[in-house]
Amino acid sequence: MSDTDFTQAVKWNSDGLVPAIAQDFKTGRVLMMAWMNAESLRLTAAEGRAVYWSRSRGKLWRKGETSGHVQQVREIRLDCDGDTLVLVVEQLGGIACHTGRTSCFYRVLTDGEWQTNQPVIADPKEIYRADG
Amino acid sequence: MSDTDFTQAVKWNSDGLVPAIAQDFKTGRVLMMAWMNAESLRLTAAEGRAVYWSRSRGKLWRKGETSGHVQQVREIRLDCDGDTLVLVVEQLGGIACHTGRTSCFYRVLTDGEWQTNQPVIADPKEIYRADG
Repeated sequence: MSDTDFTQAVKWNSDGLVPAIAQDFKTGRVLMMAWMNAESLRLTAAEGRAVYWSRSRGKLWRKGETSGHVQQVREIRLDCDGDTLVLVVEQLGGIACHTGRTSCFYRVLTDGEWQTNQPVIADPKEIYRADG
Repeated sequence: MSDTDFTQAVKWNSDGLVPAIAQDFKTGRVLMMAWMNAESLRLTAAEGRAVYWSRSRGKLWRKGETSGHVQQVREIRLDCDGDTLVLVVEQLGGIACHTGRTSCFYRVLTDGEWQTNQPVIADPKEIYRADG
């Protein structure tokens, strides 16, 4: 098969995107959710690192391009409906979130309120510029 | 705070929905991704079981209502942008996917092709009717 064929099994939404869930291969922690188009999925597979589509910037987003917090991709999974991806990744630097935390899902619903239960590992001002 | 306040921290999309990722609390496996509106999130928190919004059916979807494969919710997490949820769940019956598999993400990209690498645990015809 050609390199591009596998993207045809994906049911892209009306914007040509699907959600991509990044999961840490060691801890199993869900790190973040971002969006991919066909080109970013192809590049992710070809380069072995997570390349998303930034909806806010309207362009490809090589995760870690400014922070160094690259996601090395161990596995790419597709769900039964073909409309959601899971990337099993090694998160370089141990920080996926632009807030400087391991995971973006750092708020837990507790007694009707969202409580933060993950520390900031590194000051985002020091480690990030435009990249999340 | 009232029971409804926590839904105001969520940035619902133009359809009033956000993606909700269900993760197995024991194995860490990502089981599925579905959608929630504010009402389904409130019900999920109140009932302690996953209640999604079915986009195809245009109504609330109490996961497991026909199959018995209820997701008991241990934890509800919100991401930094407030636009994606993670549910940490106990998956009753060990089957989240309407195909009769543990997880919906049973296809893995291998040499440019999607390879199925999870067995069907139970025949969906036997265990499911309308529910996925």
